[in-house]
Amino acid sequence: MAASCRLKPLSSVAVSGGTHGNEMSGIYLAKHWLRDPMELRRGSFAVTPFLGNPRAIEKCERYVGQDLNRTFTTELLSSTEAEDEPYEVGRAREINQTYGPKGSAQAFDFMFDLHNTTANMGACLIVDSEESLLPMHMCHYIQTHYKWSPCRIYLYKLPGEETYSIDSVAKAGLALELGPQPQRVVRADLFAQMRALMACALDFIELFNKGTVFPAFEIEAYKITGRMDYPRYPNGEISAMVHPKLQDKDFLPLHPGDPVFQTFSGEEIVYKGDTTIYPAFINEAAYYEKKVAFAKMEKHTFSIPGLQRE
Amino acid sequence: MAASCRLKPLSSVAVSGGTHGNEMSGIYLAKHWLRDPMELRRGSFAVTPFLGNPRAIEKCERYVGQDLNRTFTTELLSSTEAEDEPYEVGRAREINQTYGPKGSAQAFDFMFDLHNTTANMGACLIVDSEESLLPMHMCHYIQTHYKWSPCRIYLYKLPGEETYSIDSVAKAGLALELGPQPQRVVRADLFAQMRALMACALDFIELFNKGTVFPAFEIEAYKITGRMDYPRYPNGEISAMVHPKLQDKDFLPLHPGDPVFQTFSGEEIVYKGDTTIYPAFINEAAYYEKKVAFAKMEKHTFSIPGLQRE
Repeated sequence: MAASCRLKPLSSVAVSGGTHGNEMSGIYLAKHWLRDPMELRRGSFAVTPFLGNPRAIEKCERYVGQDLNRTFTTELLSSTEAEDEPYEVGRAREINQTYGPKGSAQAFDFMFDLHNTTANMGACLIVDSEESLLPMHMCHYIQTHYKWSPCRIYLYKLPGEETYSIDSVAKAGLALELGPQPQRVVRADLFAQMRALMACALDFIELFNKGTVFPAFEIEAYKITGRMDYPRYPNGEISAMVHPKLQDKDFLPLHPGDPVFQTFSGEEIVYKGDTTIYPAFINEAAYYEKKVAFAKMEKHTFSIPGLQRE
Repeated sequence: MAASCRLKPLSSVAVSGGTHGNEMSGIYLAKHWLRDPMELRRGSFAVTPFLGNPRAIEKCERYVGQDLNRTFTTELLSSTEAEDEPYEVGRAREINQTYGPKGSAQAFDFMFDLHNTTANMGACLIVDSEESLLPMHMCHYIQTHYKWSPCRIYLYKLPGEETYSIDSVAKAGLALELGPQPQRVVRADLFAQMRALMACALDFIELFNKGTVFPAFEIEAYKITGRMDYPRYPNGEISAMVHPKLQDKDFLPLHPGDPVFQTFSGEEIVYKGDTTIYPAFINEAAYYEKKVAFAKMEKHTFSIPGLQRE
């Protein structure tokens, strides 16, 4: 990897609130910015706010037909319109037309995506992989300048997997994942944190655009390696809950033999893996149907090359 | 009021889980008890568990057509079946047939109803009014014997209002309201608390049935006096959030002039009432649509007469 890279300045930047229609921090932030976009302006650029999934927001549901934030694959984006397709497939095409097309030179330079989780993940920064240079520098800048809480980096792309999230239609992107917050609830504290994180991220873009040289650094990040489902009865219903000793312990080490689940009868189920992992999205409400009790993460230190504008 | 009352022993007792289909502690408890009802047995009686709103549970939604727990009014229970009626109106009639009829001698002696809230209400005991003698004695017994957390008593009936909740079909009832827990999430800690509270309540019934004399006592309880809506834009959307200084402060005093809301632009809105109140259900997810940011409660001390079986 080169010791330093040069990238073009960012001029087209968008932010989606309500990619999931029941995650309220981003929805109310985006609605606020649509009324008053002043705080999204910097000297060298301005951010375009939009509502990711308006129909789901209207219903205060995560989605209407299918999860929008898993719909930005090449296959779905290039599919021809069909009458019986889920609403989100058409909505993904619209977003791709407006802010993409994904992978093209015309795509927006950057997209932010605002999320909440019921898990105790604090202020989490989600990037596709450590190879995304500009987002990793943005994370580093946020970690250095945002003092409210630690901001862990979550690398979401499994090896060989295609990107599928809304921000993947832009040339680069970052998702903010703030929790814990119940679905359909807006907490003033998390709202203020999300707003401050966005301000910090925009300050980084402004510095980058104006020619600041960002040196190489080492950084700790959590990389997904797989997902753990709940124990289930033969009919598919869960037969156990996240163990009280694991609940709310996102990003803390889980060792082989540590308790992970507790059955409704009270029996303890332990982690049978070979190595220590760092669970995240523990007991996220939306993941029961995805058969995910938590994401299995490894903690790594990555060397990130320097960055400056062309 | 008499210094002591005699009531018949309780033989028919039911417990509803999933009166709201996305409040998971009671749903999984009821499903567990339907598989294995052993712990609902005592020497003098056994409890019948049931799922309050099976269709809403299936969809993991609070309700399908309308809130089941507001449907047990005389008017709705006596209405004739109509093709276009909400599912819950028919379901309420079924429940009334099985465990009622409401107000009749045939009605079940007691019904428990299991709920969760996203508000920070701890383990809250909900009774219609302080005049409900047996439930007030049950609350007193729980407060004395359940050591996990303080159990506040919430008296839900406004003066002149008819009872409308599912447990009102039985001769007496108690709702357990445990929080904070997000909708669609089951936390092992709250699940264990709800189970322990139920065990404690059943122990009380067993003692009562066996002839224990419960003397008169004084008890503190919170009585609803009204509800406070969010500030809203002309289009009906909320324009402010629960203030961070009020968030999570259920049952603590709110004085005139204390902050209650924070607009999305950051302005503070203060409480303009004349007297100190004790808010509850602060920022409950399901109450945004009901136009309730919190319930306004007064704190009272009530004298409850003694109780024993006939």
